[in-house]
Amino acid sequence: MSAALEVALAYHEAWANRDFERAMTYIADDIVCDAPPGRIEGADAYRAFMGPFVEILERTRLIAAFGDDDTAVVLYDTDTIPVKHAPGAEYVRVVDGEIVHSYFVFDRLPFREAA
Amino acid sequence: MSAALEVALAYHEAWANRDFERAMTYIADDIVCDAPPGRIEGADAYRAFMGPFVEILERTRLIAAFGDDDTAVVLYDTDTIPVKHAPGAEYVRVVDGEIVHSYFVFDRLPFREAA
Repeated sequence: MSAALEVALAYHEAWANRDFERAMTYIADDIVCDAPPGRIEGADAYRAFMGPFVEILERTRLIAAFGDDDTAVVLYDTDTIPVKHAPGAEYVRVVDGEIVHSYFVFDRLPFREAA
Repeated sequence: MSAALEVALAYHEAWANRDFERAMTYIADDIVCDAPPGRIEGADAYRAFMGPFVEILERTRLIAAFGDDDTAVVLYDTDTIPVKHAPGAEYVRVVDGEIVHSYFVFDRLPFREAA
């Protein structure tokens, strides 16, 4: 399996089990994440973005996972407390076992409507 | 290159060039597409879903593309007339050169806000 995909899957498995602290061990301090709300820079900002999501997570199901030496993509469905069937896709670049860049796609609309 | 990825990229290239009729040649008559608005079944419904998007498309840039024998995933950014930087991800299953299932992720919120 690709080294980048191993990291992407370990990261996914950690937050799938709602072990957010373990998930954060795969996030580089200087991560850059291009997400629907805009660019998120640094692990602290990433934590503030992703942490609340993991708190409302009920379950996730991996749908697709691919990788090469340096990058990987995962696509999954999630059920959350406010929104069921909220899929996401993440394309990550991995350096030294940590995600240094993430391109994140999900639909904010049902979360906005549920808020 | 994976046969499924070849089809996914040919499909993407066709709509990237706003040649929607050519894009539709890669879509199976009985396509099932799980998209943010819900499940879309059949090529006619898919045409009604995707056609209006291609009409407002200004440009798209492929960010990631992976595939195996039967499936592929592409992740891309798009600029559209109402919304700039509207990325999407598609995970497709291909049979006999046609996309029979598509799992489609994008953020509807900026389109709703622009409407």
